[in-house]
Amino acid sequence: MLDLVRTRGPISRVELAGLTGLTQAAISHAVRALLDEGLIRESGAKEWTGGKPRVMLTIDPAARCGVGVQLGEDWLVVVVTDARGDVVARTRVRGARDDAPPDVVAAVAHHVRTLLRVAGLPPERVVGVGLAVPGTLDLDAGAVLGSGTLGRWHGFPVRDALAEAVGLPVVLDNDATAAAIGEYWGGAGAGTAAHCTLYMGAGIGAGVVVGGAVLRGASGNTGPLGLMRLRRDAAGAGPVLEELAAPRAVVARARAAVAAGATTSARLSATGDPYADFGALATAAVQGDALALALVEESAEHVADAAVTLANLLDLDSLVLAGPSFSTAGSLYAQVVERRLDAEFQAAERHGVAVALSRHLADAAAVGAAALVLAEELGTLPRGARR
Amino acid sequence: MLDLVRTRGPISRVELAGLTGLTQAAISHAVRALLDEGLIRESGAKEWTGGKPRVMLTIDPAARCGVGVQLGEDWLVVVVTDARGDVVARTRVRGARDDAPPDVVAAVAHHVRTLLRVAGLPPERVVGVGLAVPGTLDLDAGAVLGSGTLGRWHGFPVRDALAEAVGLPVVLDNDATAAAIGEYWGGAGAGTAAHCTLYMGAGIGAGVVVGGAVLRGASGNTGPLGLMRLRRDAAGAGPVLEELAAPRAVVARARAAVAAGATTSARLSATGDPYADFGALATAAVQGDALALALVEESAEHVADAAVTLANLLDLDSLVLAGPSFSTAGSLYAQVVERRLDAEFQAAERHGVAVALSRHLADAAAVGAAALVLAEELGTLPRGARR
Repeated sequence: MLDLVRTRGPISRVELAGLTGLTQAAISHAVRALLDEGLIRESGAKEWTGGKPRVMLTIDPAARCGVGVQLGEDWLVVVVTDARGDVVARTRVRGARDDAPPDVVAAVAHHVRTLLRVAGLPPERVVGVGLAVPGTLDLDAGAVLGSGTLGRWHGFPVRDALAEAVGLPVVLDNDATAAAIGEYWGGAGAGTAAHCTLYMGAGIGAGVVVGGAVLRGASGNTGPLGLMRLRRDAAGAGPVLEELAAPRAVVARARAAVAAGATTSARLSATGDPYADFGALATAAVQGDALALALVEESAEHVADAAVTLANLLDLDSLVLAGPSFSTAGSLYAQVVERRLDAEFQAAERHGVAVALSRHLADAAAVGAAALVLAEELGTLPRGARR
Repeated sequence: MLDLVRTRGPISRVELAGLTGLTQAAISHAVRALLDEGLIRESGAKEWTGGKPRVMLTIDPAARCGVGVQLGEDWLVVVVTDARGDVVARTRVRGARDDAPPDVVAAVAHHVRTLLRVAGLPPERVVGVGLAVPGTLDLDAGAVLGSGTLGRWHGFPVRDALAEAVGLPVVLDNDATAAAIGEYWGGAGAGTAAHCTLYMGAGIGAGVVVGGAVLRGASGNTGPLGLMRLRRDAAGAGPVLEELAAPRAVVARARAAVAAGATTSARLSATGDPYADFGALATAAVQGDALALALVEESAEHVADAAVTLANLLDLDSLVLAGPSFSTAGSLYAQVVERRLDAEFQAAERHGVAVALSRHLADAAAVGAAALVLAEELGTLPRGARR
């Protein structure tokens, strides 16, 4: 019921009865309870049908809010979202690679407190903190395990450390899975049967929600798509997807081309910062720089290879591209993925695959992490989202 | 309850009470009902504890039986299994590629009738026919859609045609998915959290059962693993997995090597029959023939690439190799897959991936298809197995 008000509102009691098949009396009772809890409100907007005014119901966006934190090699993002999942406050600072984990946790806690104060949100409305982290996790212990990009965090009990630092309950999840839950709960994947969010930060991951349930695997560590083994050469060696498609690979190729005499309008950093350099190349590609465009398109073809594999393997009807590395040239990637799916999706006789760019892009994992705690509070969490 | 008797039997009422947490009275009542239905029986074997005999319960294997049909390019397999899923009768004839679909359906119906008569099974014990077919399917219409290997079948309403021909209800499913359901219900994947059956016939597919539910996607067309896009070369072209790893690819490489002067003890056919040739190469490989061994190991490395990708992406704890193309050199493939997972499985700090060869091998999809109808009758079907 709450989910219908959230996703279809403003909506009348009559429409709710029609959608749920419940009696008007049952609807009135349920609506009363939600109004009393302060989760929904009667909106000023009325719908007139045949001269009879209908009071419309909407979710009260200010009734609850959630905090989402996205820990990455390159960027640390903190967002506060309202009960609809819309971002009301956000901050972004450089990533977690080089600092000691306890220092990063203290900084995150500081950002959370500051954002809540600035947004004027009283603590009792904050339902908790969702924390999205790349790589392998121990979701039982709330700890980070192996991760190429966050090696210093191995074994660090990040969930409990953050909970203690902010004084709020914390839910830990993989960044791609959090983003997928966010897209399914309130984004481009809403209501689809088989959704995947393909997430590209420093690495590449996939989060999947099928039949209303999050795909979890044996330990909640689904999704390291970037480690997909690709064709080996005669000597038995072969790259994984990330080594061909991720920002670092694109930047390395650009630097090699420039060293070999190629020219580009992209201004590559003196320090070799891969994140800044990838941003510069993506910007140049969108502006039509030939070298940058060729390299980004090459990366997009590799991402599309993975997208086609995923769509076929999982029989997807929804694929969203999200994550910091799609923030500048995401539309270019989406075009290539769409074109390739048009040609290569196997079950096309049965249904299509809707391709979309996340509207949260660089913040998608943080927004998804906030959705994780909000959706649980509101009773609208996809199955399997909390293990 | 029935599932406990099936998987743990012979088992006593006391043990059932311990495992379920139900009272002795409730157990006695439920057991009585199952005995009355003829689904279980009290076995002669008694367990003596402290001088007190306990009557042990087992599922009655003869209480129900299921028929499984596996339609493939190379082979057509029909099995009859008892209520435990054990094969009691089987037949295998050459495949469905060259004949008209109605003729194949008539032949299948003939085989089913013959097997049931030979096995002495009265019709009332036969719960139905499971039908496993490769490629894209329309599970709503019960029809075959695109399939590289069964092109003549496009649009043919195989489910209803077979139901009419045999006079039994027919359930249609993808071959890899059927095999996975079989392995999860009564094979090497039983009781695992995240199971995948990697199925190799003429093509390569994957069936997945996670958290007790079959992974279905938007239209039941999950699994075309062999179409996995692999690395493209500079010109933008690149093979899919099947073009590198499947029997046809191995045979083509062997013929090219022999044409170039290499020698092998494998006797390749004069007619160029890829199934017979792959069998000959697999046999020669197992016997130590250098060329055959090198080619089969190359295929195994490609299969292992896909297995590692699947295990990481889906966070598997169980992987079974099944299908006709593993029947001779399956152990060799399993060894390579196991070695590669030992080195490359990402969540290894959390759990391992048990690798096994299906005990049904070439008949795994047929046995799984029979499990599909049996498990439904017995109320022990994994969620999502029937759409």
